Amino acid sequence: MSETPETPTAPASGSERAIRATELDAADPLAVVRERFVLDDTVYLDGNSLGALPRTVPGRIADVVAREWGELRIRSWTESGWWTAPERIGDKIAPLIGAGPGRVVVGDSTSVNIFKAVVGGVRMAGKGCTEILVDATTFPTDGYIARSAARMTGLAVRPVEPARIADEVTERTAVALVNHVDYRTGRLNDLPSITTALHSAGALAIWDLCHSAGALPVGLDAHGVDLAVGCTYKYLNGGPGSPAYLYVREGLQERFESPLPGWNSHADPFAMDPGYAPADGIVRGRVGTPDILSLLALEAALEVWEGVSMDDVRAKSLALTDFFLECVDAHVPPGRVRSVTPADHRQRGSQVALQCPGAGEVMDELIRRGVVGDFRHPDVLRFGFTPLYTSFRDAERAARVLGEVLGAQPDAVAPGTAG
Amino acid sequence: MSETPETPTAPASGSERAIRATELDAADPLAVVRERFVLDDTVYLDGNSLGALPRTVPGRIADVVAREWGELRIRSWTESGWWTAPERIGDKIAPLIGAGPGRVVVGDSTSVNIFKAVVGGVRMAGKGCTEILVDATTFPTDGYIARSAARMTGLAVRPVEPARIADEVTERTAVALVNHVDYRTGRLNDLPSITTALHSAGALAIWDLCHSAGALPVGLDAHGVDLAVGCTYKYLNGGPGSPAYLYVREGLQERFESPLPGWNSHADPFAMDPGYAPADGIVRGRVGTPDILSLLALEAALEVWEGVSMDDVRAKSLALTDFFLECVDAHVPPGRVRSVTPADHRQRGSQVALQCPGAGEVMDELIRRGVVGDFRHPDVLRFGFTPLYTSFRDAERAARVLGEVLGAQPDAVAPGTAG
Repeated sequence: MSETPETPTAPASGSERAIRATELDAADPLAVVRERFVLDDTVYLDGNSLGALPRTVPGRIADVVAREWGELRIRSWTESGWWTAPERIGDKIAPLIGAGPGRVVVGDSTSVNIFKAVVGGVRMAGKGCTEILVDATTFPTDGYIARSAARMTGLAVRPVEPARIADEVTERTAVALVNHVDYRTGRLNDLPSITTALHSAGALAIWDLCHSAGALPVGLDAHGVDLAVGCTYKYLNGGPGSPAYLYVREGLQERFESPLPGWNSHADPFAMDPGYAPADGIVRGRVGTPDILSLLALEAALEVWEGVSMDDVRAKSLALTDFFLECVDAHVPPGRVRSVTPADHRQRGSQVALQCPGAGEVMDELIRRGVVGDFRHPDVLRFGFTPLYTSFRDAERAARVLGEVLGAQPDAVAPGTAG
Repeated sequence: MSETPETPTAPASGSERAIRATELDAADPLAVVRERFVLDDTVYLDGNSLGALPRTVPGRIADVVAREWGELRIRSWTESGWWTAPERIGDKIAPLIGAGPGRVVVGDSTSVNIFKAVVGGVRMAGKGCTEILVDATTFPTDGYIARSAARMTGLAVRPVEPARIADEVTERTAVALVNHVDYRTGRLNDLPSITTALHSAGALAIWDLCHSAGALPVGLDAHGVDLAVGCTYKYLNGGPGSPAYLYVREGLQERFESPLPGWNSHADPFAMDPGYAPADGIVRGRVGTPDILSLLALEAALEVWEGVSMDDVRAKSLALTDFFLECVDAHVPPGRVRSVTPADHRQRGSQVALQCPGAGEVMDELIRRGVVGDFRHPDVLRFGFTPLYTSFRDAERAARVLGEVLGAQPDAVAPGTAG
């Protein structure tokens, strides 16, 4: 909102929050990381859908296109390290999700990796197993793909709320496919305890990390997760539709049988052997020729993590979402929105979801006013907080503009100037 | 080879072929298209593995990264046309393979698309079918994936030479998966007659177009092909690992059930419906979030086809390979190489494969001397001829350098100057 000479002094609370935001930004150990991204005056709270552009990417991609493809051409498969990019970049993602080297491979979409993980998991499960549990609140593609995997392996799918999995798992459960953070509400599911409960019943745990990787510590190795998948275009900032990844626990790799055994997963791909023999290790999670432009954009994007501690990321994420909720309380008239994101830190990811009548139109207006979140059917405003580049001032401004859009009489607008 | 003042005049035959090459280039209606690519002094005959860089790509990708991703960010999914890229780019590939609009969708690797096509084909086949025929000379990934599809649908795989398929197909055959052009020998299989034979037996025809699309007319619609897949990084010049495509015949689309029903294939993906309902048309061949950087590089690369006739491409391809074989005969000492590419034009794709003892080392030396082809295990030198940018002078030089490497006494080297 424009301030005019007639504008009276804003109430102390609004000013104080703006001052607090500035102070919090000044004390933020991650504030310097923001400079590693291309940002503008927009408050960008949609990094949980598409991360902002890291400054490392444009120059790297220009070189990949002009020199590696344009000049070296076919030689780049060896000389520019293209062939080994899926596992090399997997090893760069690994520390961000608590995985040792040789456990993560990058390539294909999240949906394709879910298929590999679920079918691969079912094939490693006990012979008497008859069902696949799927997070009842899952992002839809996980459920669609799990049903296809079930159809093709002769099992049934049973949807279960994450909080009920420990009670519902039985000796007939082959695997459970669970979202680490709920895409809609931002609820963080309890990965360690759910994984333990699954193991106690003899089932494998498959986690979808799309909304947690890069936003909070995951600890795949430490918690004994069996298989995991995730995208790289949200908190990992890999670019639109950048390739997803597959994690297979070290002790399971030898038994992992991919349902998509493309030639890149062969023990000796250039032998052109008509008989299939899987490669050792995580390479057997590869399928076809890797998508080099997108892979190498992702590799460049991962440079923003240099020197970043995931504990700092988590601390800032919680501080940002706390502060945003406080500002929403202050700016938005009572009863206009309701947070569906858990207040308990132990159950919160890195987004805030507000139920709001007419959420679609409200988000359109927010975007017109320079605050970009997104709308999720039917009535949710989603605001993602990427600790690497979101500031406390961003959080304060977003809440203030939301209050304006929802028709609060803005603190600082004089009579006669429209809100 | 360097020419020195002492060099005697080359024999008439060598000069005549060099002059013929220049004349053939001057008369080539596609010669102007070469200017649309970034090329250098190398004779690049590996476009059947990785096509050269089209000049349209670097600027387009720089804009996609800096403006569409960097500035518009999430808005580009609608405002920059990202969401519909898979089917829009499919419609741009379609005329190059003889398909009408709405029959081709781009995304995922060739191997993943083979899985969709084979499983989708088996599901549309008669209930009593027990087997999948696979081209016995196939590029290996097709066989690996077909076996996985067979395992997951309860059928068997039977390898059959393409020329024997018409005799071997039975009423128990669900589908046959055949390479249009053999990756090793460059043999062109008879798509129309094999497709007709399969249909006569009630089986579906699935063609792998990796080595034919962009090099010769395919005619998918005209010949009633049921399903097809192909990569886009060979004669379509989409860049390293650029996304592959899936073709589904119009009359089969309503019955096509993908084994990878990701959320992008849903009738209403943003409804976030836990129940799956496939989209109408070729969109149901989509899986997960499309890989935008690689897709849009491919889209820019397809601009090189503006005004190009596939009949001209085919005529030039045959003329180039004929001329190369003639030059090889002239330059290479008898008995040192043997062409495994059919002499008959009706059975020839757009590459020449020469069996040659020590082929790996020979290719290394060719590359050192500026002639880039590739080596295929165990003993094949592969030379791909991309009619859009390969010249007759390229063909003449490649054969001449091959002759030098294979130890012919070069025509034009004086005594005392090393060959």
